[in-house]
Amino acid sequence: MDTRFWLDTFRLLAGRIGEQMARYAGTKEGALIIGKGAGGDMTLKVDKIAEDIVVDKLETLHTNYGHDFELISEELGRRSYGEDPAGRIVIDPIDGSFNARQGIPYYATALAAAGGGTVGDAVVALVKNLATGDEFHAVRGQGAFLNGKPLQCRKVEVPRAFVFEAAHNKVGIKRIIPLLEMFERARSLGSTALDICYLAAGSIDVFFYPVPSRTIDYVAGKLILEEAGGVMTGMSGENLDLLTLDLERGCPIVAAGSRETIQKMMDIISLSRI
Amino acid sequence: MDTRFWLDTFRLLAGRIGEQMARYAGTKEGALIIGKGAGGDMTLKVDKIAEDIVVDKLETLHTNYGHDFELISEELGRRSYGEDPAGRIVIDPIDGSFNARQGIPYYATALAAAGGGTVGDAVVALVKNLATGDEFHAVRGQGAFLNGKPLQCRKVEVPRAFVFEAAHNKVGIKRIIPLLEMFERARSLGSTALDICYLAAGSIDVFFYPVPSRTIDYVAGKLILEEAGGVMTGMSGENLDLLTLDLERGCPIVAAGSRETIQKMMDIISLSRI
Repeated sequence: MDTRFWLDTFRLLAGRIGEQMARYAGTKEGALIIGKGAGGDMTLKVDKIAEDIVVDKLETLHTNYGHDFELISEELGRRSYGEDPAGRIVIDPIDGSFNARQGIPYYATALAAAGGGTVGDAVVALVKNLATGDEFHAVRGQGAFLNGKPLQCRKVEVPRAFVFEAAHNKVGIKRIIPLLEMFERARSLGSTALDICYLAAGSIDVFFYPVPSRTIDYVAGKLILEEAGGVMTGMSGENLDLLTLDLERGCPIVAAGSRETIQKMMDIISLSRI
Repeated sequence: MDTRFWLDTFRLLAGRIGEQMARYAGTKEGALIIGKGAGGDMTLKVDKIAEDIVVDKLETLHTNYGHDFELISEELGRRSYGEDPAGRIVIDPIDGSFNARQGIPYYATALAAAGGGTVGDAVVALVKNLATGDEFHAVRGQGAFLNGKPLQCRKVEVPRAFVFEAAHNKVGIKRIIPLLEMFERARSLGSTALDICYLAAGSIDVFFYPVPSRTIDYVAGKLILEEAGGVMTGMSGENLDLLTLDLERGCPIVAAGSRETIQKMMDIISLSRI
């Protein structure tokens, strides 16, 4: 894939979405429910506006410029542009829709391009914090960047900053209570893509998504994290690279600066079950 | 007190602190521990830089322009400018120091002016989100504002957006687990002042600080919340207005758009104990 071309395209799209969110985030109009997405969540007007911006551009790229790819998106599901295309464009137009709807300033656009159909095929990723304007990106083999500055994940002896995704609390919270009690500072911020990117930037030490996650929720963040030197796996050690890029829920995930930190966390959870 | 004068002063100070944080937040230098604050927490360089900006200005206001007041701040404690002054200036130079140190984009400056020595004496408050630039302010009896636009707290039948402060987790988390399990979306964002302000803006429905809190942590937010029509009390119904403005830890607190919502939440917690 032409990584430079896709990175530029993603940057343009994230900028346009940011402009619209400045207008609609936290408003009654933005919070209107206008359907149900292919991923099962309610589609809010903020989601639809953001997705339309991406889909309109991608259609133009296919129709007018001959780009072929399969589009995978939370709201519309999977759509092929061209016959049996190899490349995938995976988009989460608003990651953290709940925050965007409420006006809690932590939500993002997450965009990834992959040469094939699995998580490990991702080659370009861009995540933009729409509340602050921070832009994270990575190209496989070329490093990860925050606002153009190279990122290096922090390797810590004693992790301090613990962040978890709290969607579907009833199940998830119970699994990580031993960790919640252990860390002096636990945060649940509400955007998986951003959580993983701030881990890549060294702001966060450990991230847990304690219920089955979808690849679209993390594929962009994962490439940025790995290019910054970090690690993400399933909570039972699954190799996420082998998972198909789709809207199915796979496994709970954990991410940190190193395999050792992930192992420490899993040991704490296992011990507490005995 | 001259409310207009203090509001303008606070706005100037928050702007200056924001400029410095853009430089130091999330950096190794900003994270240096340079002492222990009067409030008991470690003083980081980011805290010290922010406090110095405020203290330098306040000293000038006293020495050169004859303003008398008592200053109450997390880092330096209490300091009198003038003999037995009635007015209090209460500052939390960086609310959410942990986030600021780590580079997690949710931290603020919180500033309040009070005509006397209790929480209920507060007459001017300004809270600035240093990551996004959002500025909240209120003058008692004149309403609350976000970036100059009037705020109205949302009254909800079924609260959805639940936010809790997760400092000192070991004790606190246990108290609110029934609520964590009940809400589909719980957030722990890491700045009490901002949490309360976003509640005032209708972004958040319920806020809990489940361990004893200090008045400096919430006095500014409380005035903004009340001027937006919201309510804050102790977790056992304490009237916070009667508490002294100091650095002591008082009671756990809860805030919402209405007394009815607070009562509902407390009922859920009580029921789960039976």
